[in-house]
Amino acid sequence: MTTIGFIGLGIMGGPMAANLVKAGYDVVGCNLTQPPVDRLVAAGGRAASGIAEATRDADIVITMVPDSPDVEDAVLGDDGVLANAKPGLLLIDCSSIRPATSRAVAEAAVAQGVRVLDAPVSGGEQGAIDATLSIMVGGEASDFETAKPILDAVGKTVVHVGPHGAGQTVKAANQLIVAGTIELVAEAIVFLEAHGVDMDAAIKVLAGGLAGNAILDRKAANMLKRDFTPGFRLSLHHKDLGIVQAAARDAGVAIPLGAVVSQLVASMVARGDGSLDHSGLLKLVQELSGR
Amino acid sequence: MTTIGFIGLGIMGGPMAANLVKAGYDVVGCNLTQPPVDRLVAAGGRAASGIAEATRDADIVITMVPDSPDVEDAVLGDDGVLANAKPGLLLIDCSSIRPATSRAVAEAAVAQGVRVLDAPVSGGEQGAIDATLSIMVGGEASDFETAKPILDAVGKTVVHVGPHGAGQTVKAANQLIVAGTIELVAEAIVFLEAHGVDMDAAIKVLAGGLAGNAILDRKAANMLKRDFTPGFRLSLHHKDLGIVQAAARDAGVAIPLGAVVSQLVASMVARGDGSLDHSGLLKLVQELSGR
Amino acid sequence: MTTIGFIGLGIMGGPMAANLVKAGYDVVGCNLTQPPVDRLVAAGGRAASGIAEATRDADIVITMVPDSPDVEDAVLGDDGVLANAKPGLLLIDCSSIRPATSRAVAEAAVAQGVRVLDAPVSGGEQGAIDATLSIMVGGEASDFETAKPILDAVGKTVVHVGPHGAGQTVKAANQLIVAGTIELVAEAIVFLEAHGVDMDAAIKVLAGGLAGNAILDRKAANMLKRDFTPGFRLSLHHKDLGIVQAAARDAGVAIPLGAVVSQLVASMVARGDGSLDHSGLLKLVQELSGR
Amino acid sequence: MTTIGFIGLGIMGGPMAANLVKAGYDVVGCNLTQPPVDRLVAAGGRAASGIAEATRDADIVITMVPDSPDVEDAVLGDDGVLANAKPGLLLIDCSSIRPATSRAVAEAAVAQGVRVLDAPVSGGEQGAIDATLSIMVGGEASDFETAKPILDAVGKTVVHVGPHGAGQTVKAANQLIVAGTIELVAEAIVFLEAHGVDMDAAIKVLAGGLAGNAILDRKAANMLKRDFTPGFRLSLHHKDLGIVQAAARDAGVAIPLGAVVSQLVASMVARGDGSLDHSGLLKLVQELSGR
Repeated sequence: MTTIGFIGLGIMGGPMAANLVKAGYDVVGCNLTQPPVDRLVAAGGRAASGIAEATRDADIVITMVPDSPDVEDAVLGDDGVLANAKPGLLLIDCSSIRPATSRAVAEAAVAQGVRVLDAPVSGGEQGAIDATLSIMVGGEASDFETAKPILDAVGKTVVHVGPHGAGQTVKAANQLIVAGTIELVAEAIVFLEAHGVDMDAAIKVLAGGLAGNAILDRKAANMLKRDFTPGFRLSLHHKDLGIVQAAARDAGVAIPLGAVVSQLVASMVARGDGSLDHSGLLKLVQELSGR
Repeated sequence: MTTIGFIGLGIMGGPMAANLVKAGYDVVGCNLTQPPVDRLVAAGGRAASGIAEATRDADIVITMVPDSPDVEDAVLGDDGVLANAKPGLLLIDCSSIRPATSRAVAEAAVAQGVRVLDAPVSGGEQGAIDATLSIMVGGEASDFETAKPILDAVGKTVVHVGPHGAGQTVKAANQLIVAGTIELVAEAIVFLEAHGVDMDAAIKVLAGGLAGNAILDRKAANMLKRDFTPGFRLSLHHKDLGIVQAAARDAGVAIPLGAVVSQLVASMVARGDGSLDHSGLLKLVQELSGR
Repeated sequence: MTTIGFIGLGIMGGPMAANLVKAGYDVVGCNLTQPPVDRLVAAGGRAASGIAEATRDADIVITMVPDSPDVEDAVLGDDGVLANAKPGLLLIDCSSIRPATSRAVAEAAVAQGVRVLDAPVSGGEQGAIDATLSIMVGGEASDFETAKPILDAVGKTVVHVGPHGAGQTVKAANQLIVAGTIELVAEAIVFLEAHGVDMDAAIKVLAGGLAGNAILDRKAANMLKRDFTPGFRLSLHHKDLGIVQAAARDAGVAIPLGAVVSQLVASMVARGDGSLDHSGLLKLVQELSGR
Repeated sequence: MTTIGFIGLGIMGGPMAANLVKAGYDVVGCNLTQPPVDRLVAAGGRAASGIAEATRDADIVITMVPDSPDVEDAVLGDDGVLANAKPGLLLIDCSSIRPATSRAVAEAAVAQGVRVLDAPVSGGEQGAIDATLSIMVGGEASDFETAKPILDAVGKTVVHVGPHGAGQTVKAANQLIVAGTIELVAEAIVFLEAHGVDMDAAIKVLAGGLAGNAILDRKAANMLKRDFTPGFRLSLHHKDLGIVQAAARDAGVAIPLGAVVSQLVASMVARGDGSLDHSGLLKLVQELSGR
């Protein structure tokens, strides 16, 4: 039976670990706070006191932590994953971090005989609960084959997109398109409301044609009601757009819309609206329109 | 049997008129050049020598012409639709024009007892051929009921979105979202290519999540091949974005992404690339990235 | 003695007319409201009951009105300047309007033997009072020679920049640079304040180098105090940026910064801040920065 | 007699060191390559074989190197300035680097009894030769008093703008305004040329009013001739705008125009135009306008 160490049992990691238990894996999890660990135990998993214990007997370790420095701490730190890894361990990092950090972590791990995949996810809390996440995986093809059944237990679309870091790069592109599309839909909504159009009919017809997108399908109804309960917080999207901008700059790629929407998201965070759902960009468009 | 006068048998109007014939209507069409009229006759319709003849005996007139002044000429002109209308005529203008022009035309027509709907379409040449257009209709609800069976013969999603001009407003919002989404996808593609990602896998996983949209579904494959055969030309999208910007300015609505993508589309036209498909925005992103 | 008809005695026109009286001209002025006419009489000018009377005996007519339609009304209208012009009249239009309108007015006038210059001004109310305006003149060189002594009585820098409409084009470029520079200075001020820099010292050193500009010299002190008393109102600058955008679009010229600052100015107007001085753009930057 | 160690004798550092010799200081300089050192000796200075020798006997050390890591190497490195400093040394860093790096260097230095000022300069090669640089200084007021006579020997406007890092912050604001102003002038030039205006007359009248700025005064003539000989290279301005964007992001400050012009500068570098003068932004505006 495969033992999976799971580091980081938050909003995303918690339901993912529970789905792995449901799929029959032996899951031993740790978290900075205790309640999520208790929930994992209640769901049939096992508790670890920390990274060392979660790693020591694991065949697979999954990390799901907030940002690049957290991954560096958890993996490269004094009593971290590498310091406690069994020979041949496969580490699957599901965090959304800088591609360059993923590559650096992979280099350090491989030097110690630990295999690594970067496997950031898209789909939000609901996708984690429903095991319908999209997962973009970077690393060796053979390691992807090993990881595939495990990732299939937490996601619906699991795709190998290239070498180490490629998963993060695709996740960055994903966040660029999502932020931009939310902003476009927000501009369209305020524009249509200002002209007195029947909004439900308008959203329906827009969603049915070449303007159709997942934001119109899943978020527009709440946007019309000004319900910005997260979902995915603007503050996290702001972090991700920092990754996008740095990676675009490094590669010399022009992202004119990306640069403008990054400014708008940064404004929302600076104004104190970082805890709203990312569809809360509508609020800024509305205020800029004096409405 | 209902007689439909059809004015403007171009790339869009031609197949729409043919679909009306196929649905059993008596269609009498005119066009500035003769070959499209001949094609309508070959398809089972009738030829008119001009607007007067196409209008005189019609219960319904459909106009499908390039721009606001063309609609004004065809409808309000000396020997135009209003000058030749039977009492009780219903005029359905399927052109994409300024909302203000639609309202002005409606006002002039109603004063003469002619009913009018603005009914711009989305879906491109293929949608016109397949009778799968999205149609956004502005005007009186009772006139919409009259027009519905006719529009159902040329479109798949036919929606009444508000009073006179509302169809044009929704079409403008549609064009705003479409242009912005193409640009976002173009930025993502160049970004991913620059980072050496497996592009087919990346497009697949992006299309499956919150970043999913109709451009990824229908245009990305051609964009990866740099095949910019139109489809819908940048020069026409440029015209439409002029309508968007004017209508946003009139209403005091902020469209920061709309303003930037309008600049990019205008550049493509100024550089002589106006006859490419609108997905040709990718070419500009690529050049701005020195690739 | 040269008789000058002066149409439009507002914030700018009033002091300009008074300076012409001071320079020894016979000035006969009219205005939609009476008090400015009384002030002209008190200053030594003469009152006209309307455009017809102001034009009838004039060798020169100067128009200074708000927008393109006002110029069309005053010049081309039923009892307007052209209808009442002496043979050989020289019309100097100092309004800031669309270049295309200036060209259309010139064409109509020349067809009647009336000569025309477009001569928009820059420098604000204080420049009008002090007779230090910059004046950009479009039209025939020989007409410019005739007008030069008169314009020297109200301005300091009086330059012939090209054919009919060229004055308006240069004024549009002026307004593009001014709005953009205000926004850049506003971004710099909020940036520096956020970092706790000594602001007076910073402004001094910025103004002394390659970043130096007239906004730092004349407006930054008030911006630091958040004193946005006009000066030149955002609502008028919004009108001017509409002219800039239309003229850039007509010529196929890319104005990426112009497009973005136009959005920001439009937002200020939409939010109800149109009556602030244009340096009030600082307020928006500050709010977007959550400060 | 005060001994000044000078580290980095490049395009800027070389003439600055020569001016210090001319002002009577004992200048001992080092550089990665030998010819600039020979030129310093020919000008009356002394040669050092490296940082250790340039620092060992110095009362003052001035560093003028390209980027943040270069300053870290030179100051904090194994055989760097701190490792060789006399007690009480005053280090003046004239490089343009991240404010955060300046603060980190200052902290490390102060812990060792070395005083530090960040003192980036503006004015270009000509300003360095003519000793007319603008210098923005961050650090302790008493250290600024010590440095003032020395900086006066190389600059014209020498201003204390705040604590450690403040000099860099003001330099960043300077580069934001300069890049933005170049772009605004470029947009105006292409706009005016497209409309057939007399360009010399137009530049003259623009420079005389509220649109006036140092770019119109010093760069527009070369821009009209498409002479983009540096001057200050786009690749260096690109580096500086990276600092601006990072510092704005850290402080949560919105810089909408800054973000857009950063994209345009990045494009020029990505396209291979990084070695042009920064006024070469005109080339991009022209191409985007299809001219």
